[in-house]
Amino acid sequence: MREFIPPATCFADLPAGFPMKRGGALYGARIAYETFGRLNAARDNAVLLLTGLSPDAHAASHPDDPAPGWWEPMLGPGKPIDTDRWHVICVNSLGSCKGSTGPASPDPDTGQPYRLDFPELSIEDIADAAARTVRALGVERLASVIGASMGGMSALALLARHPGLARSHINISGAANSLPFSIAIRSLQREAVRSDPNWNQGRYDEERYPERGMLTARKLGMTTYRSAQEWEHRFGRARLDPGRPGAAEPFGPEFAVEGYLEFHAQRFVRRFDPNSYLYLSRSMDRFDLGESCGSTAGEALSRLRLEKALVIGVRSDILFPLHQQREIAEGLSASGADVQFLALESQEGHDAFLVDTGRFGPPVAKFLSVGW
Amino acid sequence: MREFIPPATCFADLPAGFPMKRGGALYGARIAYETFGRLNAARDNAVLLLTGLSPDAHAASHPDDPAPGWWEPMLGPGKPIDTDRWHVICVNSLGSCKGSTGPASPDPDTGQPYRLDFPELSIEDIADAAARTVRALGVERLASVIGASMGGMSALALLARHPGLARSHINISGAANSLPFSIAIRSLQREAVRSDPNWNQGRYDEERYPERGMLTARKLGMTTYRSAQEWEHRFGRARLDPGRPGAAEPFGPEFAVEGYLEFHAQRFVRRFDPNSYLYLSRSMDRFDLGESCGSTAGEALSRLRLEKALVIGVRSDILFPLHQQREIAEGLSASGADVQFLALESQEGHDAFLVDTGRFGPPVAKFLSVGW
Repeated sequence: MREFIPPATCFADLPAGFPMKRGGALYGARIAYETFGRLNAARDNAVLLLTGLSPDAHAASHPDDPAPGWWEPMLGPGKPIDTDRWHVICVNSLGSCKGSTGPASPDPDTGQPYRLDFPELSIEDIADAAARTVRALGVERLASVIGASMGGMSALALLARHPGLARSHINISGAANSLPFSIAIRSLQREAVRSDPNWNQGRYDEERYPERGMLTARKLGMTTYRSAQEWEHRFGRARLDPGRPGAAEPFGPEFAVEGYLEFHAQRFVRRFDPNSYLYLSRSMDRFDLGESCGSTAGEALSRLRLEKALVIGVRSDILFPLHQQREIAEGLSASGADVQFLALESQEGHDAFLVDTGRFGPPVAKFLSVGW
Repeated sequence: MREFIPPATCFADLPAGFPMKRGGALYGARIAYETFGRLNAARDNAVLLLTGLSPDAHAASHPDDPAPGWWEPMLGPGKPIDTDRWHVICVNSLGSCKGSTGPASPDPDTGQPYRLDFPELSIEDIADAAARTVRALGVERLASVIGASMGGMSALALLARHPGLARSHINISGAANSLPFSIAIRSLQREAVRSDPNWNQGRYDEERYPERGMLTARKLGMTTYRSAQEWEHRFGRARLDPGRPGAAEPFGPEFAVEGYLEFHAQRFVRRFDPNSYLYLSRSMDRFDLGESCGSTAGEALSRLRLEKALVIGVRSDILFPLHQQREIAEGLSASGADVQFLALESQEGHDAFLVDTGRFGPPVAKFLSVGW
């Protein structure tokens, strides 16, 4: 089993017997992270960045790894998350395959990859592991926790389970729980992987690898990450070159949008562990901040103790629809925090925070620059 | 190969050498249809009903087949499409597996099912075959052609290719072409079928049948037939019974919405021929009324000769979004027809015309009752 670890990744050990919410515990587990900017003497300028399902901890370039990161326009010296001022810690989620312990990691009991023997994963476990990592780095109080997409869920779980750990919060295209449309999409993504004979109940290898299932799963994800309007403007009804290789394949790709899905999915499928994908995907379905706190989501949000928060959503997002960010903003407002809610008009749907950074940068920069 | 033919289905033969738009011709082909109500002596009360991808010709119960049809609340004596007044002809699309000739039908050259030797299918072929059927039944001029979903595409193709055949048109949740989001969804549905090893390049049988692929394809369709809002109200985060059979299957269904998808998809997969599904699906991607007419869609619509039209769309439809129905209404208005455009608030998305018939009935009834 391959892991996919950026070259400058650092690691923090989780304590032996790290408890998992749905049962079981991890031994010898670690969390991968990268840091950007310097922690000041007062240790009060740390910002935690929690990611979506697929990114690693390499959010941006830095001296030890000059390769562009997944949020390059947003993070760095003089950028909206200004590393001249802030010490940013980006962690790779527990259960992922980008350096943190997950189903592709060796099970210390056997020395073999966990595969489906990895314990059931919850967003709350991801949050707890991130909180442990922050404290292991000598930070007792974060200036802010920033989370986008699944990271927005992990951030809310962290705030609920670790009161006082963060002074403020930026939630981008996040949600306090998963709704049935997104559960259905993820269920179908998992079904595509599970029904690939090469998945083999998680016992694949590089030769017999569930590539077809992962391709379909990633493509289906992509249909929900952008918006129909964006694709209409971008692809319209443009065709692929009819003379391209494989064009005679029955019912094979014919339209530009099909070629786009194939190209981007091909770049993904061998770089993300399929079992890890299944675990993280299911953890999102199960996330419900209210249920986790024995209340409604609104009540759970109103009990969080934050000085201020910025909540951003995108009108064209079909996966984490805008009313879910509005719910977060309203819940946090009821907590007494100073909350700003922005509904952006971007056409890029759920992925807007990754590609339409021109709209996200200014409010994030402003939030982080004033009122401290 | 099984066909799935309702008991009271009638058949009309297509002429030998029936030409297909993308090449090839059919010999010994037939179109399945049912009729409702009586053709009057003047032969001027005939209404053609064209269906979506999956329905058969049994749109409603009638004396020869009292089983409820797929549009039972809309069609019958005293109903919105009132068969006391109208003689309704519902045809099963060419290429389908519900009685009309398609990939599951015997190829007269071999006596074996066509499978992938069936010629490439276009919406225009479906329209031409329907027009032939109408004329074979002694109708030279239809009072109206009604089409919903794919049937809305077929109806527009029929109007463009058979000028004068219909006096009026009702287009419900239809489109003048396919946009990239719907192409992407259908491409993934086809990919699910094609990557099932049992599909076997179309050479499956009842024992080795691409059931997994068809299940995933149908479920994916269902995520686009309704709306996220409807599912939110209907399922929320309700769970399936944890004690149900199969509950221990890794990453198997856990939420009510997953059980709903599984239940309904199971009812479909053995009742629709997988090759037929692929052919019809691809024909929808390729449909572009403008391209078919050597113009833009708007110009093609403005050249249609209709006395009047009713165009209905649903705001929550993500598969055939409302702006596509608006385009049809505007194009038909430019033709000089008397056009009424309705944007319904139904939560049921693309499927609203099948389930939220209370909203569709009154405008359809009114359109058909006055101004003739």
